[in-house]
Amino acid sequence: MTTPWNQRCAQRMQWMKGSAIRELLKLTESPDIISFGGGMPAPEVFPVEAFRVAADRVLAKQGTKALQYSTTEGYRPLREWIVAQMARYGIESAPENVLITSGSQQALDLLGMLMINPGDLLLTERPTYLGALQAWRAYQAEFITVPVDNEGLQVDLLEEALCAGPKFMYILPNFQNPGGVTLSLERRRQLIEIADHYGVPIIEDDPYGELRYEGEHLPPLVVIDAERLKKRARPAGNGQPYYDEHAPTNGNGRAYMRGNVIYLSTFSKTLAPGLRLAWIVAPVEVIQRCTIAKQGMDLHTATLNQMIAYEILAGDGGNAFLPGHVRLIRSVYRERRDAMLAAMERFFPNEVAWTHPAGGLFLWVTLPDYLDATALLKEALEHKVAYVPGTAFHPDGGGHNTMRLNFSFCEPTRIETGIRRLGEVFGRAIERHEAEARRAEPVLEPAF
Amino acid sequence: MTTPWNQRCAQRMQWMKGSAIRELLKLTESPDIISFGGGMPAPEVFPVEAFRVAADRVLAKQGTKALQYSTTEGYRPLREWIVAQMARYGIESAPENVLITSGSQQALDLLGMLMINPGDLLLTERPTYLGALQAWRAYQAEFITVPVDNEGLQVDLLEEALCAGPKFMYILPNFQNPGGVTLSLERRRQLIEIADHYGVPIIEDDPYGELRYEGEHLPPLVVIDAERLKKRARPAGNGQPYYDEHAPTNGNGRAYMRGNVIYLSTFSKTLAPGLRLAWIVAPVEVIQRCTIAKQGMDLHTATLNQMIAYEILAGDGGNAFLPGHVRLIRSVYRERRDAMLAAMERFFPNEVAWTHPAGGLFLWVTLPDYLDATALLKEALEHKVAYVPGTAFHPDGGGHNTMRLNFSFCEPTRIETGIRRLGEVFGRAIERHEAEARRAEPVLEPAF
Repeated sequence: MTTPWNQRCAQRMQWMKGSAIRELLKLTESPDIISFGGGMPAPEVFPVEAFRVAADRVLAKQGTKALQYSTTEGYRPLREWIVAQMARYGIESAPENVLITSGSQQALDLLGMLMINPGDLLLTERPTYLGALQAWRAYQAEFITVPVDNEGLQVDLLEEALCAGPKFMYILPNFQNPGGVTLSLERRRQLIEIADHYGVPIIEDDPYGELRYEGEHLPPLVVIDAERLKKRARPAGNGQPYYDEHAPTNGNGRAYMRGNVIYLSTFSKTLAPGLRLAWIVAPVEVIQRCTIAKQGMDLHTATLNQMIAYEILAGDGGNAFLPGHVRLIRSVYRERRDAMLAAMERFFPNEVAWTHPAGGLFLWVTLPDYLDATALLKEALEHKVAYVPGTAFHPDGGGHNTMRLNFSFCEPTRIETGIRRLGEVFGRAIERHEAEARRAEPVLEPAF
Repeated sequence: MTTPWNQRCAQRMQWMKGSAIRELLKLTESPDIISFGGGMPAPEVFPVEAFRVAADRVLAKQGTKALQYSTTEGYRPLREWIVAQMARYGIESAPENVLITSGSQQALDLLGMLMINPGDLLLTERPTYLGALQAWRAYQAEFITVPVDNEGLQVDLLEEALCAGPKFMYILPNFQNPGGVTLSLERRRQLIEIADHYGVPIIEDDPYGELRYEGEHLPPLVVIDAERLKKRARPAGNGQPYYDEHAPTNGNGRAYMRGNVIYLSTFSKTLAPGLRLAWIVAPVEVIQRCTIAKQGMDLHTATLNQMIAYEILAGDGGNAFLPGHVRLIRSVYRERRDAMLAAMERFFPNEVAWTHPAGGLFLWVTLPDYLDATALLKEALEHKVAYVPGTAFHPDGGGHNTMRLNFSFCEPTRIETGIRRLGEVFGRAIERHEAEARRAEPVLEPAF
C-alpha cells in the first residue's frame, strides 16, 4: 500500500540505507544481552551534577536568552572557548573559523552538502566510520578506500588510490572508529605531504583525541599542515601566506586555517552525547558557506545546550572542570579497555587477532578468513552477547571476518563475561570448520 | 585568496543564498532600532521558571538518560504526548506517524532531502515562508507560486499552476508567515478536493495554530483530507481504507495518515525557540524514510531538550501547563497586534494597505506600486525602524512594494513609536513621488 509521497521520493533516497548499527542496537536493548555493539559513552561518567548546576545557573541568570533564537554560527563565548582549548593542542584558529554543529553527524552532513556532487568519489580509511558513510551516501557519493594497519592508514598505498581522483580524504587519526588504531607521527607527516602533492584536501575527524590511555599525544593533521604552510610562506616571496589578512578576523588581524585540512571535534565524548554539540574548524570561506547551509538545515544549534556547555566549561571564570573530568573518563575507560584486552588474551582462540587501542572507545577483531562475522552474530546473540560485524564499515566491500567491539559502555566484570561468551562462540565455529575440513580431506585409500 | 575547499564546492552551493532576514537581523541588533524585522517570540512570555524546575527534575531523576544518545525518532513519551495533543484538534495519528525534528527548519530540510530532485518544481503561496525556500533551494528546487488574499491562497488560481506539474504544494493555512492571512474553511475544502483531483500532495506548515486571537479555530488541512478518505473508504469495497492494518502500529492496530497531507508543527512558539523542537506527522513510510535521512543529518534531536519539554508539558501527570501558558501568549500578542493595527490606522498614509491577522506573529504591508520597499529600508533604518522587504518571500519574482512586519517582539509603546516612524518614512516617499509626478506633467504653454 502506498501514499502519494512514496511515488514522489527523490532519486537519492535509493542511495540511503538505514544504519546496521542502529538496527542492531534495537536488538540489544534487552538488559540480559552484553552489548559491545553500540558506541555509547559510559553513563557513569556523565557529569550530571555539573549539568544540574549549570542548567540552573543559565536559566536563572540568562533564561530568556537561553530560550530564544540565536545565531547560526553558534554561541560566541563557546566558540571563543573552543579556540582557546584547541590552541592548547597547537591548532591556531579564530572564532570565525569555528561553527557549532548539532553533533558531529551534522558536521559531516554539512560538509557533504557543501562538497559532494552525485557520483563524486571520496577516499576513506578501510574500515571507516559508518556515520560518515551514511551522511555522504545521501549526497550520492562513491567511495574508494585504503586499508589501515596497527599504525593507521597505510600511506604507502595512498598514491594509487589518489590517482582515481577523490574529492577529499576522510581520516580519523586518533583511536579510529572502528579500527581502534592510531596514525603514527611519521605517517601523519607523509600523509600531509602527499595531500599537498596531489592537491587533495583532508577532513580530519577527532572525536576521541582527549581520550588517550597510554603514549604521547600526537599533533593533529591540521597542525602538521599549518607547519607545512608556515615553512613555505616567505615574508616577501611568492609563497602562500599562512594566514589571510583580507579575510574576516577576530580583531587581531588573522583568519587562520588556510591549508588542506578541516578539523572536526565534539563534546559528545567529553561532556555528553545527549547535548548534540560539536564543531567544525575550517577556513573562513568554508565556515561562511557551511553557515548558509546550516541555516537551511536547522537554523541554529539549541541555544540552551550551548550555554549550559559553556557554563560547565568556563562558568566559574576558570577552566578547571574539563581536565579533571577527562582524567576521570580516561581512568574508567582505560580500566575497561584493559579488562577487554585481558579477557581476549584469556578467552579468544589463537586464530583470532585484535587491535590494541591507545585510546578511544573501540577495538577491532579479525577472525580467521573462513569465518563470517555477520553469520556468527546470530549465534552470539543466542549466547547473549553482541558486536557490530565489520562489513558495514567497508564501503567498497570486504571485512566479512571482522567486527567492532566497544569497551566504554560495559563494566569490567560484564566485559569479561561477554568476551568469554564470544570466545566460546568463536572457538566452536573454528572447531566446526576444522571438523568439516577433516571430513573434506581426501581419504587415503590403502594401496593394493 | 582561495583554499582547496573553495574549488571543490558542490554545484548546489551556487543555488544556496544567505537569508535576507538574517543579514537584516544583524543590522538591527542595535538597541535603538525598533525592529519589526525578526520573527522572534517575546522573551517576556518564555516560561523560564517552568524550564528551571523541569531541567532540574529531569537531571535529578533521569540525568544519565537525558545526557545519553537516544533514538532518531525522538523521545517516545513526547511523541505520545504530541499524538494526544493533536487529537484534540482532530488529527488522528499514532506515535509511529511522528518524528521529532531539530526545529521546523529540519523538518523542511528532511522533506527536501526525501522528495526533491534537482530541477523539481514546488508550488508555494505568494508570498511564502523564507525558511522553506532556503531549505529547498539547497536541493535545487524551482518554484511556481499562487497568490494569497485576505482569505489565504487563491484556490481559483490553483489549477493553472498545478498544470505545470509541481511535486507538492507548501501551504501555511493559519496566520501565514509572512502574509498574516488565514485560509478560509471553504477554500480549505476546495484545496483538498483539487489536491486529490490532480494527485499533488500538500505539506501543511502550522507553527502558529495555537496563537489565534479572534474567531473560531478552523480544521487543519490534514483533518479535512482524512475526512475525504473516510468518506471514500468502503468496508468491503475497492476504496482505499483510511488506515493501513499492515503498517507498523502503536498497538491498537492502526497506522494513520494515509492521505495527501503531511503536517508540521513546533514548540518554538508555544514553549521556546531556543530548544529547537518540532515535529512531522506523516504516513509511516514517510516517517521511516525521514528517520533514515535524519540519522545521517544529526543522529537525533538533543535528548535533554526533549525530556525537559516533556517534563514541562506532562511532568505532573496532568496537561495543565500548556493551555494556561498559551492563554498568556495569546493575550500578550493580541495586545501587540492591536497596538500595531491601531498605530497603522493612525500613522500610515491612506495609500498604504495591510492585512488584519487573526493570529500568529506577522502582518503584511502593501505600499503604492510606485514605491520600492527595499530602497525605503535604508531610509527606515536611518529613522531607527526596520522591517523585511517583501521580495525575499516571492520565489518567482514580484513584491517590490511589500513588506513583512512582526508584532510579537516589541512592547506596545515601542510598536506605536516604530509605526509612527514608518508612517513618516512612507509619507515622505509618497510626497516625493507626487512632487516628481507634478514636475513631470507637461507644462501647458500659453497659446500665442
